[in-house]
Amino acid sequence: MGNLYIGLLHFPMRNRRGEIVATAMTSIDVHDIARTARTYGVARYFVVTPLPAQRRIGWRIRGFWTEGERAAEESGRGDALELVAMADDLEETLGWIRDAEGQDPVLVATSAKRHGKQQTSYAELRRRLRESDEPVYILFGTGWGMTEELIETCDLILPPIMAGSDFNHLSVRAAAAITLDRVAGESKE
Amino acid sequence: MGNLYIGLLHFPMRNRRGEIVATAMTSIDVHDIARTARTYGVARYFVVTPLPAQRRIGWRIRGFWTEGERAAEESGRGDALELVAMADDLEETLGWIRDAEGQDPVLVATSAKRHGKQQTSYAELRRRLRESDEPVYILFGTGWGMTEELIETCDLILPPIMAGSDFNHLSVRAAAAITLDRVAGESKE
Repeated sequence: MGNLYIGLLHFPMRNRRGEIVATAMTSIDVHDIARTARTYGVARYFVVTPLPAQRRIGWRIRGFWTEGERAAEESGRGDALELVAMADDLEETLGWIRDAEGQDPVLVATSAKRHGKQQTSYAELRRRLRESDEPVYILFGTGWGMTEELIETCDLILPPIMAGSDFNHLSVRAAAAITLDRVAGESKE
Repeated sequence: MGNLYIGLLHFPMRNRRGEIVATAMTSIDVHDIARTARTYGVARYFVVTPLPAQRRIGWRIRGFWTEGERAAEESGRGDALELVAMADDLEETLGWIRDAEGQDPVLVATSAKRHGKQQTSYAELRRRLRESDEPVYILFGTGWGMTEELIETCDLILPPIMAGSDFNHLSVRAAAAITLDRVAGESKE
């Protein structure tokens, strides 16, 4: 079985006017997605931002729960936040995975919109994780989504979560939870 | 097909010491779960708290996005928040559903722990929603979970989301997203 990695990217993202921006990190994304990642056996959760001040905040949140005054709390919050690593850019996280795994991961984009790119399915990615030793690294965007250029650097893209819905504005916290449940959750019966 | 309702309850909940408390409403729960509910075609999302000041805050968040300055924003946030209704207690929300549906809903509890109560499965609830006209009302707890007495008043309970994981501390935002995807999402292929 391959190890599963996830990344929450804050650059290069689109804002509501389609401009390329670095979005603001929010602490609830660090917490919620770490808890989900821990539930589903994710090997590491990268929070990626080019802004040094925001990376410091991220490390501080992690430290507060893993080494600081709340480390012993029985909620297990520390166990979840230990999965978090702050990084400058995608390349740094790929280096981290290469060092740990001895190979490049299959890099998977997610998006609320359909793209021309080669698409995989949740079921196919689930099979791949179970049957192959290759690590899989799933990227989640923030703001109004990843740039096309970023999506193009990925090997595969997952389809929108509810392609048939007339509403596609899930929070990234909800999207990450649903995606991990579909590719790494228990059988649904 | 039956209509689906969800409720986020803030009383009677357990705190970390097992005491019965009213938990604090958080605006991120209102927003995130409304967006998820809208994506999955939920008929109404009840946010239930006995604290009048918190209900006022909830209505104000809703109004800001549905009638106030951000109502025209293209994120569709207003479409999601229109699903939100604040209520005093479970009985008030059941009356609301009875008025709309002409019958009582099947009341379904959720929990991160296993309970003795008659359990349904995600697949069974999914079939029930598709094949029956009965409304279904799924309750989510906050804090350290619903009291046993509250769970006992429900008709059914769903199993923990990842019963096989050694970590069961998903945020309620993630738990609601995964639950709705399992019972009301598209087929996973």
